[in-house]
Amino acid sequence: MIIQIDAESDIPIYTQLTNQIIEGIARGDLLPGDSLPSVRAFAADLGVNMHTVNKSYHELEKRGIIEIIPKSGAVIASAQDITLSSQQRLMNHFRPLIAEALVLGMSNEQVEELVRSIIQDFSQPK
Amino acid sequence: MIIQIDAESDIPIYTQLTNQIIEGIARGDLLPGDSLPSVRAFAADLGVNMHTVNKSYHELEKRGIIEIIPKSGAVIASAQDITLSSQQRLMNHFRPLIAEALVLGMSNEQVEELVRSIIQDFSQPK
Repeated sequence: MIIQIDAESDIPIYTQLTNQIIEGIARGDLLPGDSLPSVRAFAADLGVNMHTVNKSYHELEKRGIIEIIPKSGAVIASAQDITLSSQQRLMNHFRPLIAEALVLGMSNEQVEELVRSIIQDFSQPK
Repeated sequence: MIIQIDAESDIPIYTQLTNQIIEGIARGDLLPGDSLPSVRAFAADLGVNMHTVNKSYHELEKRGIIEIIPKSGAVIASAQDITLSSQQRLMNHFRPLIAEALVLGMSNEQVEELVRSIIQDFSQPK
């Protein structure tokens, strides 16, 4: 999986890293049970601070996307039934984004179409 | 419009304020041409720092949601055709969120249904 960090972006580097790992899993580049690199190796590889990678791994763990296993390191968790608290958290993030799309002039149908097209991107057979 | 700030939330206060203003516009509580309170009055009303309100207003202006007019203050902008750069920015925010919903075990249909239900919430006649 190729991670691209944009140091010029408004989005914090650890968020970029977190998002790209999640998108990699959604695309099937990373599978449940796969290990992520060690914090040290990943930081060196990406040219970022170890603290940044560490923060990203802890964020992913908190959201139930990876498990951090002593000695083995960070491993992609198996998809389970989504928990209510995860569903609520996602809802709280979708809501302002959808509001913004509507406020900026997208129609209901355009928002639905945008979402469908992103879902399709992730569903392409590899 | 009622703004509720949760000081315990992981979401920064200026982001909570920004999101709630956007959602208020999407629901039709705030209409194009309506004025937002002055930074000073709003900060006092919410019990937050003036800097926080100011940061939120500038974020809303940057995204094309309000205009800051000398002497008049912050005014809700008219919805226009969404710009390509706004569409790209929204896309970049929808993508990791949709990826996460899928990774956490939601089906394509559940994600589409979640989005539709949020759109419906905003489309209720007042």
